[in-house]
Amino acid sequence: MNKNFLLKNPLAQKLYHKVLKELPIIDYHNHLNYQDIATDRQFANITQLWVASDPYKHRLMRILGVSEEKITGNSSDFEKFKAWYEVLPRLAGNPLLDWSQMELSYVFDYELFPFTNVEKAWKDLNKKLETMPLSQILGKFNLAYIAPCISCTDDLSPFQDNPVMAPSLRGDDMLLPTHELLDRLCTQTGQAILSLADYLSAIDKRLAEFLAVGCRFADHALDDGFDFRADDGKNDIRFTALVEGTVLEQADALALSSYLLTQLGGLYAKHRIALQLHIGAQRFTSSRLRSLAGPAGGFAGIGQTVCVRALTQLLDSIEKTPSGLPHTLLFASNPSDNAVMATLSGSYAKDACEALVSQGPAWWWCDHYEGMATMLDNFATHSVLSSFIGMTTDSRSPLSLIRHDYFRRILCQWVAQMVDLDRMPRDFSLLSDTVYRMCYGNAKRILED
Amino acid sequence: MNKNFLLKNPLAQKLYHKVLKELPIIDYHNHLNYQDIATDRQFANITQLWVASDPYKHRLMRILGVSEEKITGNSSDFEKFKAWYEVLPRLAGNPLLDWSQMELSYVFDYELFPFTNVEKAWKDLNKKLETMPLSQILGKFNLAYIAPCISCTDDLSPFQDNPVMAPSLRGDDMLLPTHELLDRLCTQTGQAILSLADYLSAIDKRLAEFLAVGCRFADHALDDGFDFRADDGKNDIRFTALVEGTVLEQADALALSSYLLTQLGGLYAKHRIALQLHIGAQRFTSSRLRSLAGPAGGFAGIGQTVCVRALTQLLDSIEKTPSGLPHTLLFASNPSDNAVMATLSGSYAKDACEALVSQGPAWWWCDHYEGMATMLDNFATHSVLSSFIGMTTDSRSPLSLIRHDYFRRILCQWVAQMVDLDRMPRDFSLLSDTVYRMCYGNAKRILED
Amino acid sequence: MNKNFLLKNPLAQKLYHKVLKELPIIDYHNHLNYQDIATDRQFANITQLWVASDPYKHRLMRILGVSEEKITGNSSDFEKFKAWYEVLPRLAGNPLLDWSQMELSYVFDYELFPFTNVEKAWKDLNKKLETMPLSQILGKFNLAYIAPCISCTDDLSPFQDNPVMAPSLRGDDMLLPTHELLDRLCTQTGQAILSLADYLSAIDKRLAEFLAVGCRFADHALDDGFDFRADDGKNDIRFTALVEGTVLEQADALALSSYLLTQLGGLYAKHRIALQLHIGAQRFTSSRLRSLAGPAGGFAGIGQTVCVRALTQLLDSIEKTPSGLPHTLLFASNPSDNAVMATLSGSYAKDACEALVSQGPAWWWCDHYEGMATMLDNFATHSVLSSFIGMTTDSRSPLSLIRHDYFRRILCQWVAQMVDLDRMPRDFSLLSDTVYRMCYGNAKRILED
Repeated sequence: MNKNFLLKNPLAQKLYHKVLKELPIIDYHNHLNYQDIATDRQFANITQLWVASDPYKHRLMRILGVSEEKITGNSSDFEKFKAWYEVLPRLAGNPLLDWSQMELSYVFDYELFPFTNVEKAWKDLNKKLETMPLSQILGKFNLAYIAPCISCTDDLSPFQDNPVMAPSLRGDDMLLPTHELLDRLCTQTGQAILSLADYLSAIDKRLAEFLAVGCRFADHALDDGFDFRADDGKNDIRFTALVEGTVLEQADALALSSYLLTQLGGLYAKHRIALQLHIGAQRFTSSRLRSLAGPAGGFAGIGQTVCVRALTQLLDSIEKTPSGLPHTLLFASNPSDNAVMATLSGSYAKDACEALVSQGPAWWWCDHYEGMATMLDNFATHSVLSSFIGMTTDSRSPLSLIRHDYFRRILCQWVAQMVDLDRMPRDFSLLSDTVYRMCYGNAKRILED
Repeated sequence: MNKNFLLKNPLAQKLYHKVLKELPIIDYHNHLNYQDIATDRQFANITQLWVASDPYKHRLMRILGVSEEKITGNSSDFEKFKAWYEVLPRLAGNPLLDWSQMELSYVFDYELFPFTNVEKAWKDLNKKLETMPLSQILGKFNLAYIAPCISCTDDLSPFQDNPVMAPSLRGDDMLLPTHELLDRLCTQTGQAILSLADYLSAIDKRLAEFLAVGCRFADHALDDGFDFRADDGKNDIRFTALVEGTVLEQADALALSSYLLTQLGGLYAKHRIALQLHIGAQRFTSSRLRSLAGPAGGFAGIGQTVCVRALTQLLDSIEKTPSGLPHTLLFASNPSDNAVMATLSGSYAKDACEALVSQGPAWWWCDHYEGMATMLDNFATHSVLSSFIGMTTDSRSPLSLIRHDYFRRILCQWVAQMVDLDRMPRDFSLLSDTVYRMCYGNAKRILED
Repeated sequence: MNKNFLLKNPLAQKLYHKVLKELPIIDYHNHLNYQDIATDRQFANITQLWVASDPYKHRLMRILGVSEEKITGNSSDFEKFKAWYEVLPRLAGNPLLDWSQMELSYVFDYELFPFTNVEKAWKDLNKKLETMPLSQILGKFNLAYIAPCISCTDDLSPFQDNPVMAPSLRGDDMLLPTHELLDRLCTQTGQAILSLADYLSAIDKRLAEFLAVGCRFADHALDDGFDFRADDGKNDIRFTALVEGTVLEQADALALSSYLLTQLGGLYAKHRIALQLHIGAQRFTSSRLRSLAGPAGGFAGIGQTVCVRALTQLLDSIEKTPSGLPHTLLFASNPSDNAVMATLSGSYAKDACEALVSQGPAWWWCDHYEGMATMLDNFATHSVLSSFIGMTTDSRSPLSLIRHDYFRRILCQWVAQMVDLDRMPRDFSLLSDTVYRMCYGNAKRILED
């Protein structure tokens, strides 16, 4: 690809090539397979690496009527490659076309255009892949830190002694714990769990173990319909009932999980773990696709605009815990919530702490050129651009790490356009400082906090 | 007008003039008066054609304080023409100024600027209209298919033997049928209607009759506040109560209409009729204007952002019917729902069917340059641009067919800008294929499905 | 600053310099300290003028981790100046950087860049301020009308005999009046208040007194979660209960305040006072900041997208009162409500009255380049641009009056870009008329209504 891809003016090119191109990557939240990384997986063919683990690609094939058999079904890997490869010319304007070109160009030095026949592409790409185990693929990306997410009772050993990989804690299953989770947590921490206080104490111990292997980020999903209930003093009773096997009524479950999320927030602050709130996904769309492709099969939707009252109550409740608010990143599923999220960055604060609450990068369905540019427009005006945490992929595919480069290019182009409109000062040193912080400095600061 | 109106760069001009300019129009949903078309109406004067049937124009006059007497009241047609004509210089930036110029230029070869006095304009335009019955006006537009909407028990005879006109089925009155509707349906189909099963059977027969006169599209309005209830097994009882004259409680009405909409969706799929969901209008604003101008008098508003949970439950429920989902087009009244709608295109799928669920064109108050461009930005990134169904007018005015040309120009300009930013490949053949599908190919595919 | 700051093309420059630059300012709603104005305050130092009264600046310092001590706490004024001054280089892309430059350049002829050391800046600015009482500062702005807001029982004497200052009525405390308010109102109007009718009669008298000192605008806040209840005939009873000391249940309070807002709307129409509805703020975020910085301390957020049903019911109810709707301006806190608000301008109308209901300028967190440009895009297409009411600051800081100039520049640049795209006619006279109305003519028309 052209070295100035997406960089359409001299200032954009200068910022990218002089400041951002060589910066290390901090990918603080993703869904990479950490077993693959720990065992340095050798992928059998290009489908396994490029198509099988990427639900973004799956959904575009579905939109174009490719049969599910060739997406997540029993077709051969070549058939699956062919299915994906042949929809590419239909994707003009979609980020997946850009990403696909970038993925192959950066990692395999392979150009998608001019478009060759599918058999040749399959052969050429497999040949290149043959001598590239996952470590070599990841080696293309100048990684400083990558954090695949795991649950609180998952095995931490794959993360020991890895210089760049640490777990990101997926906290959702702690909000209404099953007996299995409680049993595992009890075993791992030596803490008997008979009461709510026991439970929080066990989690506190477990968090210290996560911290010991480099964990600095946790995340919770606040899906479409998210609500919050203030503590009414009855959550000890609810928790005990849960432990004793009662299935909680919906209202009790909401009260208890609101309380636990609040307390977890406080514990994250104590351990200096940043809290990511992934807000507003609608995960229940087609039951049919859910049964065929699994719960994370790429068919989720964007939920309605967020209930701000519930969100601000949650944040205020966490702030009232002894350790206050941790670094908190708000990820909006619905781009119509961008202004809400960015503005909340000015609604909470802590002395000597930059961007205590802030908006996370353009997330999931919003993670593309338009989504990023819109978010930059929004964040610059409703918050402070130079405090932005920067990109993370949240992806299941190792090749998605290329999206850091995609973000950096879009950022430089966007900054240059702002300067052309007198909306940012034409001061290279000031601009360099700004984009450096946004692509590396701010995430590093949180890592070293 | 300048032949390159709105086309501001060479690629935009080339795409328009080489690919789109001469393409036929498929206007798959509108509110044209089919009696006028069937009888080839000769309009008495330019007001009757240009102003009287266009609530978009009425509302702009209201905003500028024109008295209702001169809009929908008893003023003379010349007074009404004058009222509209004289607000035109106030409309810079509004699509109605563009449309008005285009309407007069394309159909009458009449240029609005330089602005002449109102008497001369009235005389000149009436003179041109004198020799142009409706068939000649429509003849300017290279129509392949136009579909005015009618209710399920309306007379189908005006549509028989018309090579380009077919009905679009407006389905709203089927969700809580009146006795009158049931009686007419019974008469038309010979199906006694005593139970819910009878009712659906009668509709099934009626749909076959619609199909026989070329119907391929139905539509339902899910207005502001739309909600959905899953089938609780009591809808037979509710329907029988309705037939027996009971006025249903609001909760029962919601349950029954949710059920009927689901079943209708399944029947549309069976008959290969595409379902349009017009989502989120707020039709109750000024009671005063409603009484003066009628329920469709141009004073409706945009509703709150959509309840995604209700919408996904509806779609999932239809998918579970024996015939599954029909082609389904989601029309958003609120542009803040664009991302929600486009993303849902990846949430439902059918093998070998392109764009099973998709976003419809920028609708109603969003049907203008800004609305279209925003929707293209959005659809390109959240869905697959080349699967887009293309424009339909949804209009009461025959002159509105010019908006197909408006859309095509905006599309070409938008594509050219995307290419300039490296966001689409600079490949004329690929781009031609994309815009051809968007302006004609995809709608044709559904017609011939 | 460059005289063509933000004006990037010749048409933009021509429109600004020939039409808008010298136009007087009508600032029809703000939070300026009217005592300061009446007594011609001499500010002790630049912090008092430039930083202390501006919560927009406070929140950016919080985002960057400045300690609250240096924002609203007990630090010296120099420390507070230093805190603000030193975050400025971090603010690229934020409107506060633009405003800060403009504030100092226009009022003090002082250029922020090249950035000098903080001690020198402090000394230089204080020296300039030394000889400038508030009247001289305001004298820089060519003010035709400024309207600080006050409550209905506040003292009107500071507004007597002031040629440019009049009160804007903040109406919120009238919706659920306290005994103190009723007592004061009774004293001021000589009207005993035993019933709802008495209360409305007293307000009617008080409005006449406001009118006598130039009041032409009132405002009400419809915060996040706003709802409306139609009159059920029981509001006399509720009001009597309130007067007798009963604390109303939430449902009763909602019903009564809905009724009172409706009746107040009618009274405003009778007195030709324009009604501003400030919609959708979420004022409850951090309890901690609320206790430190006060309820208006700059930490509020943007609420969820508006409940359109409630808003249209309110407007329809006011329209049904004897005097109908007053001029009504809808201010959206959430930019995702822009289309909703602008479209409602076509949903209510009055013969011979332009823009009866209209959208107000980009408000609060939306009051910046991006917010203004987005609102112009939106208003132009969903309403009639030339009927736009134009800027008001809604600010606590006198220097914020510079934002009128900021708006005018952005408007000219935006218009020029529209013309370049063929989206507005290249007709200088028509464009001049449009921007003149938007920046002065329309507000003046309401003042003189």
